[in-house]
Amino acid sequence: MKNGYIGVDIGGMSVKAGIVTIDGKIIKKDRVPTDTSNGSEPFLASMKTLIVGLIKEANKLGYEIKGIGFGAPGVVNSEEGTIDYATNLKLYHVKVREYLKDLNIPIYISNDANVAALAEQRFGAAKGYHDAVMITLGTGVGSGIVINNKLFEGNLGKGAELGHMVIVVDGEECNCGRRGCFERYASTSALIRETQEVMQQNKESIMWNYCGYDINRVDGTTSFECAKAGDKAANQVIDTYIKYLGEGLLNVCNIFRPQAIILGGGVSAQKDYLKNKVQKYLEDHYYGYHETPRSEVVIAALTNDAGIIGAAILGFPEK
Amino acid sequence: MKNGYIGVDIGGMSVKAGIVTIDGKIIKKDRVPTDTSNGSEPFLASMKTLIVGLIKEANKLGYEIKGIGFGAPGVVNSEEGTIDYATNLKLYHVKVREYLKDLNIPIYISNDANVAALAEQRFGAAKGYHDAVMITLGTGVGSGIVINNKLFEGNLGKGAELGHMVIVVDGEECNCGRRGCFERYASTSALIRETQEVMQQNKESIMWNYCGYDINRVDGTTSFECAKAGDKAANQVIDTYIKYLGEGLLNVCNIFRPQAIILGGGVSAQKDYLKNKVQKYLEDHYYGYHETPRSEVVIAALTNDAGIIGAAILGFPEK
Repeated sequence: MKNGYIGVDIGGMSVKAGIVTIDGKIIKKDRVPTDTSNGSEPFLASMKTLIVGLIKEANKLGYEIKGIGFGAPGVVNSEEGTIDYATNLKLYHVKVREYLKDLNIPIYISNDANVAALAEQRFGAAKGYHDAVMITLGTGVGSGIVINNKLFEGNLGKGAELGHMVIVVDGEECNCGRRGCFERYASTSALIRETQEVMQQNKESIMWNYCGYDINRVDGTTSFECAKAGDKAANQVIDTYIKYLGEGLLNVCNIFRPQAIILGGGVSAQKDYLKNKVQKYLEDHYYGYHETPRSEVVIAALTNDAGIIGAAILGFPEK
Repeated sequence: MKNGYIGVDIGGMSVKAGIVTIDGKIIKKDRVPTDTSNGSEPFLASMKTLIVGLIKEANKLGYEIKGIGFGAPGVVNSEEGTIDYATNLKLYHVKVREYLKDLNIPIYISNDANVAALAEQRFGAAKGYHDAVMITLGTGVGSGIVINNKLFEGNLGKGAELGHMVIVVDGEECNCGRRGCFERYASTSALIRETQEVMQQNKESIMWNYCGYDINRVDGTTSFECAKAGDKAANQVIDTYIKYLGEGLLNVCNIFRPQAIILGGGVSAQKDYLKNKVQKYLEDHYYGYHETPRSEVVIAALTNDAGIIGAAILGFPEK
């Protein structure tokens, strides 16, 4: 029997799981709907059924499952193997490892942004780099940090929240209770807010036409697409966005000096256009000290499968 | 023969070195003046003489030296064992490990703030904690990060520069070339600047009396001592200082979730008065997420010997 690993990606709509080889290939996938409406017990039960099915499948295919990893949204406790606080899924203090202990397979758990970073560093956009930081530019700003080929999650797996690093003291209010978090300037929501503000001041901008003259239809692509078409107001939005994103990433450079910065999430659909602007900002404003290593900006490559692959990697033997 | 380690603390005035036991005790110390006026070669030679003397001394005392560690100001390359850029000492690309290779003892090198953190975490104020971050509040803001009992220095030993994390985009100009760095708000120089500004607006403040009505004699103690005496303007200075210091430290919490935050440098002479205010700020403004572990604020304890002990720890066998 060859060694196989199961990665479980707990999402808002469905729990996706897959059998993953040590080379990061998914050889079988399955999923169940995410239903936590009756509490955590039936949710855990449906997840267990999904996993047991995949273990049998793996055995048939000649693989013995050596580890099961979970990527969960919200706050986990990696030492205890629990999901402590995932407010969107209404999961609190869910003992995942405990529930699955009769499988007699080691169980690992981490945050979803962390496992995505691990997948991209090991098998995706940052393959070949041992130090990489992934920043997910979505509704919020998620982050995952890989140091020396290993995930760094902070004490008890509760750190690495780069989205909640304040970059503007007394700045925009954040859901977390602080003001001026990186997330308030680099998320899609921040980009939309800034787009709408600039549109109000620039009635001639083609962004109005782009969103059908309905400012509520502005999304994360509005300013990018209109900037590419040469609209001055749209370019102003993008310059502001890149500046704040760049300042946050320069902080990341000064703290971690990653060999690669992986950009993921909705905004990363802008691919090279985004990447080139961000890379230029970093080079133009690089930390004043000499002799600091360069950080390469890359765009996430594994998108849909990153969660499953990254969760499975949690169970891989140490390099 | 018992195992011993040599720690070398390269300072602006002198190079201090000591024989350190595995329990963090210094059993013999020596020093030479820091003289780099004739270039790096004579500087390296005098450091070698110092070290060779201590090795002989160690042997007489029944210790075999198993490792030699250096704490150097500025930018080092821990992999290559070089001091790349220490502008105050005018040292550039100095190959320390190469120069000492005929001693046949493993040579380690790190930044001075990093080794101080290691010493405090292993044998000082943060003893018993496996994750700790040290922030040195001096002319600038230095930092050292210990994760899982090991120093985290960033790629090639060039990261962990928390003093150059921007907390106010477009804020105060920093020597590093950016604006709004943590250092510009939490260093002694920042405290003095703020004290002077508030004094100009408050001619009745007892801070004027405290500094002999000469604003150029304001130092890092002026506002603290007058605040303790109940001066309103001085308390305003301290509140502002604690706020910015606290915001930077909350960022550190969200990224690293250290079990302990060690405050060192000149401002830390305020001991419990500082510690209590900082701890309160963290508790009052803690990250919105639930279930995050507490970070204990502590004041550096080893002061003068931290450099020697921390440098020696670099040579200790892995735990």
